[in-house]
Amino acid sequence: MSTDCLFCKIAAGAIPAKLVYQDDHLVAFRDIHPVAPTHILLIPRRHMDSLADTEPADRELLGGLLLVASELARDEGLSESGYRLVTNTGANAGQSVPHLHFHLIGGRAMTWPPG
Amino acid sequence: MSTDCLFCKIAAGAIPAKLVYQDDHLVAFRDIHPVAPTHILLIPRRHMDSLADTEPADRELLGGLLLVASELARDEGLSESGYRLVTNTGANAGQSVPHLHFHLIGGRAMTWPPG
Repeated sequence: MSTDCLFCKIAAGAIPAKLVYQDDHLVAFRDIHPVAPTHILLIPRRHMDSLADTEPADRELLGGLLLVASELARDEGLSESGYRLVTNTGANAGQSVPHLHFHLIGGRAMTWPPG
Repeated sequence: MSTDCLFCKIAAGAIPAKLVYQDDHLVAFRDIHPVAPTHILLIPRRHMDSLADTEPADRELLGGLLLVASELARDEGLSESGYRLVTNTGANAGQSVPHLHFHLIGGRAMTWPPG
């Protein structure tokens, strides 16, 4: 845990969030600035800055995160209507919190390109 | 392989594409309609419609895909400047080819929300 990381604090329960899922390795919660009717963030509990900060040993963790995203989308009733899953790395992508997170966005039509 | 699936045909080499990576399970190639200086698509060779079509046995495959995305971003010189990784599921997200694919986009500043 990085003691000054917002998402580490949320994962540790030190800062409240609207959790929708948690297990030993992952936490998911609603974005406080939603851009669609469903906007959930999925993070690993262990701090890693971004996807650029991952390594081969993270394979199972990362695969599990995508599976949970798919399950949460199903729970939100988005499997049929559709959803977008996005992760931002670094400044050009506008990454706002330097702890790896995926945005699960759905409940409205989305445009292309994705920003 | 789905015989009428564009991305299955690219994975099989039946339709040409600018490949940037391939192994036994994954293929990556440049999008023919790039929305940024770098725009690469990553797909599993095995047909699955979308992230909604995955199951627990796909964990390693999906984790591997994210690791390859991170490696390709590094190869493209994007680790520092940043990149966005996006997968679309279904109509609301504008999924254009019904074979699971992730867009690796970088080389320019991106806006929020992501579509």
